[in-house]
Amino acid sequence: MERLNHRITLARRPSGVLTDDCFEVDDVAVRELDDSEVLIENAWLSIDPTIRTWIAHDTYLPAIEIGAPIRCFGLGTVVESRNDRYSVGATVQGLVGWQQFAVARSGLQVMPDGVQPEAALSIFGITGLTAYFGLLDVGRPEAGETVLVSGAAGATGSIVGQIARIKGCRVVGIAGSDEKCAWLTDALDFDAAINYKTQSVGKAIAEACPDGVDVFFDNVGGDILEAAIGNLALHGRIVLCGAISQYNDAVPGPGPRNLPMLISKRGRMQGFIIMDYMRQAKEAIDELSQWVAAGELVFNVDVVDGLDNAPGALNRLFTGANTGKMMVRL
Amino acid sequence: MERLNHRITLARRPSGVLTDDCFEVDDVAVRELDDSEVLIENAWLSIDPTIRTWIAHDTYLPAIEIGAPIRCFGLGTVVESRNDRYSVGATVQGLVGWQQFAVARSGLQVMPDGVQPEAALSIFGITGLTAYFGLLDVGRPEAGETVLVSGAAGATGSIVGQIARIKGCRVVGIAGSDEKCAWLTDALDFDAAINYKTQSVGKAIAEACPDGVDVFFDNVGGDILEAAIGNLALHGRIVLCGAISQYNDAVPGPGPRNLPMLISKRGRMQGFIIMDYMRQAKEAIDELSQWVAAGELVFNVDVVDGLDNAPGALNRLFTGANTGKMMVRL
Repeated sequence: MERLNHRITLARRPSGVLTDDCFEVDDVAVRELDDSEVLIENAWLSIDPTIRTWIAHDTYLPAIEIGAPIRCFGLGTVVESRNDRYSVGATVQGLVGWQQFAVARSGLQVMPDGVQPEAALSIFGITGLTAYFGLLDVGRPEAGETVLVSGAAGATGSIVGQIARIKGCRVVGIAGSDEKCAWLTDALDFDAAINYKTQSVGKAIAEACPDGVDVFFDNVGGDILEAAIGNLALHGRIVLCGAISQYNDAVPGPGPRNLPMLISKRGRMQGFIIMDYMRQAKEAIDELSQWVAAGELVFNVDVVDGLDNAPGALNRLFTGANTGKMMVRL
Repeated sequence: MERLNHRITLARRPSGVLTDDCFEVDDVAVRELDDSEVLIENAWLSIDPTIRTWIAHDTYLPAIEIGAPIRCFGLGTVVESRNDRYSVGATVQGLVGWQQFAVARSGLQVMPDGVQPEAALSIFGITGLTAYFGLLDVGRPEAGETVLVSGAAGATGSIVGQIARIKGCRVVGIAGSDEKCAWLTDALDFDAAINYKTQSVGKAIAEACPDGVDVFFDNVGGDILEAAIGNLALHGRIVLCGAISQYNDAVPGPGPRNLPMLISKRGRMQGFIIMDYMRQAKEAIDELSQWVAAGELVFNVDVVDGLDNAPGALNRLFTGANTGKMMVRL
């Protein structure tokens, strides 16, 4: 039986915002499996800001090659298997790409029966794990401390803020609309929220965090990072998770002018990549599950249908249009 | 007996390079001591880049007040005492200021008999301690790793590099002249040295550190910090000790454009202030003493005579003119 694989591949690297001509859509025959390989039919794709960096250049992973499908995490069903660890019919998660079928031989997680795809790819996927380990292992907040989150209404940021609240911290979020800010304070019980589009961010942080910022979880970079550094508490920690404000820049903008404040504040700024934590994923998923079951932790998803809409879904992350975890249902 | 105190006080805050009109020289009567106070006759003043930040604005210490003597560390003799901990005749070190006589009641370290002032204020003073704790406690280099130091021919940088070498690291220094670079490699046994005035720093770091920079000890900030970030090894650590390239800027220049590299490299950037380590000073001084006695660690001093030459001595730190620990002998 010959299967056709519908794919979206990288046609050229962008300089600036992703445009249609960066991508190519094609249908190619699925090749025969080699020993240890499995064929996955994708069902859900996880749309994350980091994809934009993979498209641009080498990062913690090599850049996506021209002509290759856009790399992404996703969820699918094993439809052929020459690997004992993954049997036909199993639901698996891994780096599958913007395509209907993916061939893999390792790096797949088998999902328990009955898993809800939206939860598996968000709160129990790299989004929730990023929030959990980034905040708790890198940021190390203590009860009573002030935690500031940028991109707070986003998939990761909204979970970070809720975990901080659960851990007994004062939580302040930065987001891009009054509606998002209201959602943070009303639905997610943040202590305060700052609209960076209408407020002077530095001043607003100073008002919302009168004792300074003990932990800043940064998804955004740029001016917001500078404003947060300016309000760092003594021994403050800055968790560098992402820099979404810069990913579309052809030429990177200037960095924070006030880095020397890290000296006088004895501050620590640290980056991390969630893949380093995958062996500890189970402990995190167990704790996240308990919080979800207890109604203490909620997560939003933003679902788009159809592989061909994946480029638009990725761009939505950069316009502030989406709320919650962006994913594509095939 | 009325004593006259010859002083250099802050007349106005500078915008840019320190000029003579920032200072005022006067002679005022030394006041009577209160209970628990001591009067110190200063003999040696430590001239450190951080003084420039104290002159400019609040940092980890409040800004020096207009009309007050310029704050500095120094060494002197107790000439009057109403404090049992400090007896007349004792040699003490502490924050004494640009003046002949200082009144203090605490925060003084009594020096052992026969201490050499040049050593007490450099290798066994805040300079040596800054190098020791900044490198070992914040940077945490391991044998075989590559340590890069900026301001490497300076008082702190030259000690940092030598400690790194003693600890079995590959050591690369960045300095501002071929002469300084030759001193680093020939006299201090650095593995390589980079002249930032004549070389492309990013490229030169890449060549001198083919496996990347595991620990960057930064005294300089600015473009050199950006170049170092660009060459950071996986899990690299950046010790923010100072940002001497920026202290004379009226308006701070842009920060490093490549901060997001801290994410993909899982990098850590951390500031520290040596005053936080003073309780652990003895362990450091013991180890530094052993290295000095064994001839493994050398230190240079750059001595200027006369209190009235203190402003010029401070400015020398910013022109690249000095080599070794800058101090004023009264």
